[in-house]
Amino acid sequence: MTTATYSVTGMTCGHCVAAVTEELMAIDSVSAVSVDLVPDGTSTVEVTSDGDLEIEQVRTAVDEAGYALADTP
Amino acid sequence: MTTATYSVTGMTCGHCVAAVTEELMAIDSVSAVSVDLVPDGTSTVEVTSDGDLEIEQVRTAVDEAGYALADTP
Repeated sequence: MTTATYSVTGMTCGHCVAAVTEELMAIDSVSAVSVDLVPDGTSTVEVTSDGDLEIEQVRTAVDEAGYALADTP
Repeated sequence: MTTATYSVTGMTCGHCVAAVTEELMAIDSVSAVSVDLVPDGTSTVEVTSDGDLEIEQVRTAVDEAGYALADTP
C-alpha cells in the first residue's frame, strides 16, 4: 500500500471535494482519498493505492472531475 | 408568471449553482431558475414562478442546498 499527495488547483467547496474523490476512487487500485480543501489556493489530495498508480491516472481522474494537478504544464 | 431576484452568499462554483437550482426547481410553482455566480461575493438567483412564491420558501430551498439568502439576519 502506498500513499502519495498531489496538489490540485481550482477546488472551492465541498462539492469539488466530492467530485474529485469520486473520480479518484473509481480507479481500481485506489483504496482511500483524503482532500485538504484550500478554497483560495492550492488544495492537496492524498491518494492511497493498493497497487500501481501512475500519475497520469491521477491527472486524468482530476481532469475528469473538472480540476487540474498543480504541476500540469 | 412572476420573476424575482434574490442575493445568495457562499456559492463558489458550478456545483453550488446546480445544488441551489435543484432545490429551487423542486418548489411546485417555480418554473425557471437562473443563477449569476459571483464566487468571491454575493451571487444572485433569479426565480420565475407560475403561482404564489413566498420568500420563506426560497429561503428554505437555499438553506437546504447549503447556502443562505444575503438578507438572512
